[in-house]
Amino acid sequence: MPIISKRGIIMPASPIRKLVPLANKAKEKGTRVYHLNIGQPDLPTPEKGLEAIRNIDRKVLEYSPSEGISSLRKKLVEYYKKFSIHVTEDDIIITTGGSEAVLFSFMACLDPGDEIIVPEPAYANYMAFAISAGAVIKTLPSSIEEGFALPSIEKFEALITSRTKGILICNPNNPTGYLYTQKEMNQIRDLVKRYDLFLFSDEVYREFCYTGAPYISAFHLEGIEEQVVLIDSVSKRYSECGIRIGALITKHKELKKNVMKFCQARLSPPLIGQLIAEASIDAPDKYMLDTYNEYVERRKFLIDGLNRIPGCYSPIPMGAFYTVARLPVDDADKFCEWCLSEFEYEGQTIFMAPASGFYTTPGLGKDEVRLAYVLKKEDLANALIVLRKALESYPGRTI
Amino acid sequence: MPIISKRGIIMPASPIRKLVPLANKAKEKGTRVYHLNIGQPDLPTPEKGLEAIRNIDRKVLEYSPSEGISSLRKKLVEYYKKFSIHVTEDDIIITTGGSEAVLFSFMACLDPGDEIIVPEPAYANYMAFAISAGAVIKTLPSSIEEGFALPSIEKFEALITSRTKGILICNPNNPTGYLYTQKEMNQIRDLVKRYDLFLFSDEVYREFCYTGAPYISAFHLEGIEEQVVLIDSVSKRYSECGIRIGALITKHKELKKNVMKFCQARLSPPLIGQLIAEASIDAPDKYMLDTYNEYVERRKFLIDGLNRIPGCYSPIPMGAFYTVARLPVDDADKFCEWCLSEFEYEGQTIFMAPASGFYTTPGLGKDEVRLAYVLKKEDLANALIVLRKALESYPGRTI
Repeated sequence: MPIISKRGIIMPASPIRKLVPLANKAKEKGTRVYHLNIGQPDLPTPEKGLEAIRNIDRKVLEYSPSEGISSLRKKLVEYYKKFSIHVTEDDIIITTGGSEAVLFSFMACLDPGDEIIVPEPAYANYMAFAISAGAVIKTLPSSIEEGFALPSIEKFEALITSRTKGILICNPNNPTGYLYTQKEMNQIRDLVKRYDLFLFSDEVYREFCYTGAPYISAFHLEGIEEQVVLIDSVSKRYSECGIRIGALITKHKELKKNVMKFCQARLSPPLIGQLIAEASIDAPDKYMLDTYNEYVERRKFLIDGLNRIPGCYSPIPMGAFYTVARLPVDDADKFCEWCLSEFEYEGQTIFMAPASGFYTTPGLGKDEVRLAYVLKKEDLANALIVLRKALESYPGRTI
Repeated sequence: MPIISKRGIIMPASPIRKLVPLANKAKEKGTRVYHLNIGQPDLPTPEKGLEAIRNIDRKVLEYSPSEGISSLRKKLVEYYKKFSIHVTEDDIIITTGGSEAVLFSFMACLDPGDEIIVPEPAYANYMAFAISAGAVIKTLPSSIEEGFALPSIEKFEALITSRTKGILICNPNNPTGYLYTQKEMNQIRDLVKRYDLFLFSDEVYREFCYTGAPYISAFHLEGIEEQVVLIDSVSKRYSECGIRIGALITKHKELKKNVMKFCQARLSPPLIGQLIAEASIDAPDKYMLDTYNEYVERRKFLIDGLNRIPGCYSPIPMGAFYTVARLPVDDADKFCEWCLSEFEYEGQTIFMAPASGFYTTPGLGKDEVRLAYVLKKEDLANALIVLRKALESYPGRTI
């Protein structure tokens, strides 16, 4: 039998994925499973998006341009203006989800052995895309005690080598919900400038900032405009994760040419998704406001509830729709597994993401989980009751 | 400014892509451009596929499973049975177009430096995906004189090294339209067995075989079932290239696990495209028959017409909807460029793909072009007239 690639073998299987079969088994037994494990909102896709396909009048569903449909890119230019992000249609490349934007960023910027620095905990799939590109991610721990603030610049500098090509941030952050401050963003800017790096900035949660603190886009930072690679997606803001439409935005002309070669190889991003995304941008203000208000309430409800459970602690997330919480358990991987396989309370249980999957430094996040507040309040209320009961009976409880 | 990746720089820009701006300029001047350059059929998408989205009753366009929707995979199992391809739902992974199936095949089977052997001329993007994976494609020329038949097995063997991990074929072939015979497929099977290789088989044109000769799938070959990686797409058969739905099919359990890691990293294939693809499989027999008959006629019309032009020669393609033809010109790249930039006949010109982009051996295909017969007969008729006139006035004509 021919041998499969080492590349795939070393790619870590996500600890969430390993739990999915257990969740399915629990459901088969009739247990209600509350999914706090994945960023799949239950909120409706904008009606305008759905109308766009209900009223489709095309006869041939043909390839769209490799860089995406012009009218969508034009509409995004206007959308970004509302956030004081000034880009042109030519700076925007439509991708198959934010995922492809990350992959193509890495492919077009990094060669095998090149390094990027990423604060952790971090979105686990960055690692998968880095392995795909043969690049190396060096992680820099942030801590729950400091609310997952940016690690000190000295720590970044200590990781920089001759192979360092970039820094990657996710802002507002998945999984922590942290929103980088102006001061922190300025520090990143200075670092990027001093060491001539790319700044990969994943800003797919920009609509969801809750504290009044400003959202600072990487494109707001002066003097590094051509070093920024912005990663975006319509998935979260319009609750349309399934259409797979994202964007890679760069003002670096040579880089854009490089990215376009990867885009041309895969021919085009999904046509129908682009039609839906374009129409969704026209969703009425009320849609965005309702969505926002819903998350504000859920956030308060979840975080208050978590912090009321003895031994639990969650910082207050400033953005996105996740939080990383500390639980009074020996091993969050085991606890999450136990919740799905050995526990139920009144026919219900909870599916949480063990935080270990978001760290690469061994041992970190062992008593942390990521919770997504993408469920309606009554479900969150039940999930909190279940969590409290689970912690009361879990044999590996530490407090 | 940070330096972009060498990977992207070495990726060859397609000679077709370079001509696109010239075609656009010609159109701006009011010239009618006949697109023989790209496999974008003008035929309608099945009505059933379009209905599936017109009648969509979902409220949230959410992530689909990373391996694709179960009902689509089940339907594909039945579809493949009609071609005596016996696979289970578990063997099928839905991908974002056939493109992603190629990329993930390479990522999951090949490590940097690993080699695969591909008969050329070959679909140019295989090269791009190989470069993405850090793998090396070794090409083996086939020739127009032999109708692009499979090169001799001795020639394959001469290319095999300790790094050779697989052979890739496209059957029926893009760009040549060649259909591999049972004898040739048996030879490939023996080679794959003897050297313990993967057989990557791109069979997206299986519906389009015109000569009565049988279509031999890689999965028909006995004794190498677990070594076959089948690449498929609904794009061509249902004229829905824009929805980006393909499939990677393997019976190799470890490989499947490896591929799934790449699938999970990109979360899911396009949801809406899957709904359309699933419905399209139910297109009435008449749809497929009409499509088939249309290509049969166009093929005859184009090939007859080409071979009537003095100095032109095209073998008779047995499948797909392309042919590679020899033209009486000094340099087909220059000729194709000249047609778009300096020539027009009665306000019309033609856009052809220089065959050089399908070869990696320098100098091969210099007087060849690929023509796609994806236009209706009256357009093909005009295109043939324009080609004849262009050859009459082209300064680099050789005969």
